[in-house]
Amino acid sequence: MTEPLTLNPDRLFPAEPQTRAVARKLYDQIRDLPILSPHGHVPPAWIADDTPFPDPTNLLLTPDHYVNRIMHGQGVDLADLGVPMGRTDFTPEQARNAWRIFCRHWHLYRGTPMKFWMEAELVDIFGVTVRPSEETADQIYDQIAEKLAQPDYRPRALMDRFDIQFIATTDDPLDDLEHHAKIRDDASFTRTVAPTYRPDKYLEPARDDWNGLMDALAEKTGVDTGTFAGWVEAMEDRRAFFKSMGSTSTDHSHADLGAEPLQDAEAVYARARRGEASVEECTALRKAFMFEQARMASEDGLVMTVHPAVVRNHHQGTFEKYGADVGGDIPMQIEVVRTLQPMLNAFGTNPNFRIILFGMDETVYSREVGPLAGFYPSVYVGPPWWFIDAPDAIKRWRKSVTEYGTFYKTCGFIDDTRAFMSIPARHDVARRCDVSHLAELVVEGRLELDEAEQTAFDLTSTLPRKAFNIPS
Amino acid sequence: MTEPLTLNPDRLFPAEPQTRAVARKLYDQIRDLPILSPHGHVPPAWIADDTPFPDPTNLLLTPDHYVNRIMHGQGVDLADLGVPMGRTDFTPEQARNAWRIFCRHWHLYRGTPMKFWMEAELVDIFGVTVRPSEETADQIYDQIAEKLAQPDYRPRALMDRFDIQFIATTDDPLDDLEHHAKIRDDASFTRTVAPTYRPDKYLEPARDDWNGLMDALAEKTGVDTGTFAGWVEAMEDRRAFFKSMGSTSTDHSHADLGAEPLQDAEAVYARARRGEASVEECTALRKAFMFEQARMASEDGLVMTVHPAVVRNHHQGTFEKYGADVGGDIPMQIEVVRTLQPMLNAFGTNPNFRIILFGMDETVYSREVGPLAGFYPSVYVGPPWWFIDAPDAIKRWRKSVTEYGTFYKTCGFIDDTRAFMSIPARHDVARRCDVSHLAELVVEGRLELDEAEQTAFDLTSTLPRKAFNIPS
Amino acid sequence: MTEPLTLNPDRLFPAEPQTRAVARKLYDQIRDLPILSPHGHVPPAWIADDTPFPDPTNLLLTPDHYVNRIMHGQGVDLADLGVPMGRTDFTPEQARNAWRIFCRHWHLYRGTPMKFWMEAELVDIFGVTVRPSEETADQIYDQIAEKLAQPDYRPRALMDRFDIQFIATTDDPLDDLEHHAKIRDDASFTRTVAPTYRPDKYLEPARDDWNGLMDALAEKTGVDTGTFAGWVEAMEDRRAFFKSMGSTSTDHSHADLGAEPLQDAEAVYARARRGEASVEECTALRKAFMFEQARMASEDGLVMTVHPAVVRNHHQGTFEKYGADVGGDIPMQIEVVRTLQPMLNAFGTNPNFRIILFGMDETVYSREVGPLAGFYPSVYVGPPWWFIDAPDAIKRWRKSVTEYGTFYKTCGFIDDTRAFMSIPARHDVARRCDVSHLAELVVEGRLELDEAEQTAFDLTSTLPRKAFNIPS
Repeated sequence: MTEPLTLNPDRLFPAEPQTRAVARKLYDQIRDLPILSPHGHVPPAWIADDTPFPDPTNLLLTPDHYVNRIMHGQGVDLADLGVPMGRTDFTPEQARNAWRIFCRHWHLYRGTPMKFWMEAELVDIFGVTVRPSEETADQIYDQIAEKLAQPDYRPRALMDRFDIQFIATTDDPLDDLEHHAKIRDDASFTRTVAPTYRPDKYLEPARDDWNGLMDALAEKTGVDTGTFAGWVEAMEDRRAFFKSMGSTSTDHSHADLGAEPLQDAEAVYARARRGEASVEECTALRKAFMFEQARMASEDGLVMTVHPAVVRNHHQGTFEKYGADVGGDIPMQIEVVRTLQPMLNAFGTNPNFRIILFGMDETVYSREVGPLAGFYPSVYVGPPWWFIDAPDAIKRWRKSVTEYGTFYKTCGFIDDTRAFMSIPARHDVARRCDVSHLAELVVEGRLELDEAEQTAFDLTSTLPRKAFNIPS
Repeated sequence: MTEPLTLNPDRLFPAEPQTRAVARKLYDQIRDLPILSPHGHVPPAWIADDTPFPDPTNLLLTPDHYVNRIMHGQGVDLADLGVPMGRTDFTPEQARNAWRIFCRHWHLYRGTPMKFWMEAELVDIFGVTVRPSEETADQIYDQIAEKLAQPDYRPRALMDRFDIQFIATTDDPLDDLEHHAKIRDDASFTRTVAPTYRPDKYLEPARDDWNGLMDALAEKTGVDTGTFAGWVEAMEDRRAFFKSMGSTSTDHSHADLGAEPLQDAEAVYARARRGEASVEECTALRKAFMFEQARMASEDGLVMTVHPAVVRNHHQGTFEKYGADVGGDIPMQIEVVRTLQPMLNAFGTNPNFRIILFGMDETVYSREVGPLAGFYPSVYVGPPWWFIDAPDAIKRWRKSVTEYGTFYKTCGFIDDTRAFMSIPARHDVARRCDVSHLAELVVEGRLELDEAEQTAFDLTSTLPRKAFNIPS
Repeated sequence: MTEPLTLNPDRLFPAEPQTRAVARKLYDQIRDLPILSPHGHVPPAWIADDTPFPDPTNLLLTPDHYVNRIMHGQGVDLADLGVPMGRTDFTPEQARNAWRIFCRHWHLYRGTPMKFWMEAELVDIFGVTVRPSEETADQIYDQIAEKLAQPDYRPRALMDRFDIQFIATTDDPLDDLEHHAKIRDDASFTRTVAPTYRPDKYLEPARDDWNGLMDALAEKTGVDTGTFAGWVEAMEDRRAFFKSMGSTSTDHSHADLGAEPLQDAEAVYARARRGEASVEECTALRKAFMFEQARMASEDGLVMTVHPAVVRNHHQGTFEKYGADVGGDIPMQIEVVRTLQPMLNAFGTNPNFRIILFGMDETVYSREVGPLAGFYPSVYVGPPWWFIDAPDAIKRWRKSVTEYGTFYKTCGFIDDTRAFMSIPARHDVARRCDVSHLAELVVEGRLELDEAEQTAFDLTSTLPRKAFNIPS
């Protein structure tokens, strides 16, 4: 039997009628504000070339490890879902079958954000009216495929429809950013697509490919990367290029938040270049590199976003078979207060420095991140992110960071996604959670309605613009 | 003055009327489902011999450290409550006096689950109508004693009344399980009582009695336990026996979740047998033993339940005076992601392997356990357990593990108790909390009612059967 | 445009009408109970000399790092707010300007407890009727200044108005407590102001000034502090003096909760006195000192309050410029179960020993603090404190510690503040949060109304008196 699929206009609002009414009132004032997406993984080529999206599976399933990992957790083979991305041997029939597998497992997503996002995509974007199930799989697949063939389902048309005013991509420091240049130079397209400088692997001397990366860095910049000083100069060169291309932030993810000057940096660097540095030296050098990134940030004004402490590719067998970003990354515990102290002692009160702390370890919200953001002008509380970007987690985050971190040291929402179609739904979840929290404060006599209204606007527009230096 | 004692039919349901109505509707559909108790500590002899329960104190207070520890926390001497269990010197008058002490301290239990369980036991099982107090202590004591003398208050009659369809005990690997055999061979009793393989002490070479245990293991199995290989063979032998007796799971609790192969296991084992192994070697050997248990599980299909990180007998003086399990165990922090990686790399995607992670450290729910269970087919989120089995903690648990662990990687509720009379109330708390959570999702527009109804059934019946391989 | 400023009589009560009605009913029964403030930082001289308070900024902003740090987090220079306290160069015009800065940043405090406290102070104490803003800054400043000039705004009159029955200060062990003596000897003033013994720096041999402190301790007590035994005798001497002056508790804050006997304490102490002790030895000695404090407590009956794990003066530059207590302290993670074990093994069941565990690390509430307090007669759960003293955090705290720590091992609220005017509001927040939690239990059928009423009274009056030995 086929169930209808509809979206409850009050979804995610508090159950208590008076609170819900306030939430709805606040939501109506921000629901249509432009989307600002200062951190994500949409390939700029999509927008530069305005390439049509392929079949539903290739668009909605294969690249989305949020969705795939749940089926994998029930024994579904990732290969049957088209993983890894970009496989040429995945036939149309296999693509259709992947969608059938997904619809058959639809019940698994109950209570998860993936259900919320997917329902919004199916209904709002593709006009689907039936609940995914074994019976409806093909019907839904055909309907989506038919839409994707239409010109107004191309990336640029959808960016207009979604009203994405600013979106940042994530890019390698040696990237020539030609897609960004093409978009910039196209006067017919007025929305902003900014690159983000993501230098992680150039900061990890323990990597097998690090020396090769240093050579490539030298070749690209014309700077001799044989010395630590050369590394610094080359990095500054590429940061300047990214900034000239519209970049407003750099993104960093390492095992920890360590960032400290290194006494004999040149000597250790030389040993690392000769492949003779110890594990401890490689770690110390990585922290010295991070300290330099912070120092550069305090000079060129690029905002640092940091999100450490993820065990990447937890299951070796899956990594060997399917590669990275297939759902096998697992968060771990993090320490912030002690680890960030050297960086904050050096740059924490520098008006030109800004660092945004993302994280998936909820234990540091009220204990470390909130108190740090409350005190340091440079520290902002990063949005609830990745495994924390779901309604209940977002509510915990807001209640944990606000009382001593304040609304005004948060920086809006980031979708951090490759799943282009899910961007509106992800931001909508954040907006609905924000107004729900504000509505509770109003009804509990903790905030006046006009204060809540202004705060809702600031959380959606003012703060992301300020925190990420987004041009108006 | 004597207060009445009654049970609110809507207890634990959300206050908001619309949500409460949905919760009640969902509850009505699962309240009478059979109890599945796949992990606990009820002595099988009680059921095998259908022995009448002794006096109220001996049944409801002395064995229940949940109840006793709270009085101890206010200075009550455990000895006055009949601790340790099985004392022969505890007179009927002392037993009655213990009950008076308990009733005098009844106010201490406000806001605790013990109050909830005890009230349900008193009202539903014993028909008590007055609130425990100094004035009512004797009246209640006499009423319970009078009931316990009746045949329909014997274990088997109560199992029928409670509708406990499946209950697992916890047993020593060398146990002959004659009580289980007796129950199995009694055609007149159709409910299932399954043993659980609990080998902890055979995996702890640091224990003073470990060598003796190895000798006993050898004697029982006829296998030479002089070698690591012999240990493995003997363990496999006993696991096979337990499986043949209806066991579906093994239970493990050590200081951490460590499980890794050991290079020179035989040599270290030999040193351990000679009592010459270092502390580090004993730990490494314990982890090698755990890794073998996981390997065996991946072959014989017995489900592993693990619940580490408890400081047993925190107060030495209390332990020396009263022994273990008297309320002095305290949870500590745990690390899951890194520690479990070797085991999961080896068996995590093995379709025949299953591991259920219990825990009392709430910090790992959204950060480690949920994400691991979401991705690994073999990993299930254990129920909220021990110090976490109370309403507010259960709500936090459900909100923390569901969004990325999913409802469908949880495994129902486990009571884990010696307190036989509290089993229905404990499962009832879990059911009431589950439907309350589902009702919130429905009213917040996050789940359709029919989805919530099916999920409520699955949480109570489908999932425990699947996760613990409970025969239908 | 000028907004009105009013206080919602139902503020902080649950939104759900039935629950709110119960909360209001409970609140009406405790709202006017005397304030018991067993831990804080009000200077006793204020009360001894009944000195008029200076200008609004000097009273409400400069000393309150809770308020200042939020402005600093937005780039405001602490110097512009009069920091550090007691500056003689801060002109009346600068003081007025600081208030203007504060009012201009009023929106920053949305969702923070500082907003709640300040609103209550402005409306209830000073009769302010307009919301702080750039426009209203001067008007409010003048109104407060005008009130402060009146005799009934002096400390003693306000203690009567606030009905502060008992307040504890925090004092150096070598303090002569002459202010306390003056208050005690003044028959016209009947409210109790008790000293609190705060020996931290005398327990830190790693401090540069430790040897000087030992000499001062010797001079004050006439005891030779050249030996560990002498240190013990001198400490006992000062504790006895404090107790004779009405002290009921001692207060302790170190990097961790470590407290253990030290084998060769005398030798290590001698090395420390010669400035030759290693960092490890200094730490070991500090733990030995703490163990002695616990032993003394078990003999003289002074209650120990402990609140470790704060990184003091996180930003070195701010510390050098403005000194301590200016908002730069940040909480860090703590371990309780293992660390406290030696102390609790020695004194945990001693009927004369009591230890109250404060903390800002929420992760230990349900995992460590609740379970410890439930079991140990000597262990009490400290109140939600410092960064945790805000409504949402207080609710999390109550829900996390009650189910296994019980209401009856908590000890009421402590304001721990220098901000005298905020004391009523801080206690009011705690009372409103308590009745809100109790009201939820009532409406969820977990507690009878009469049980909630008695519990509300006990949380506000009975328990702080009992836990802190407050004389009636």
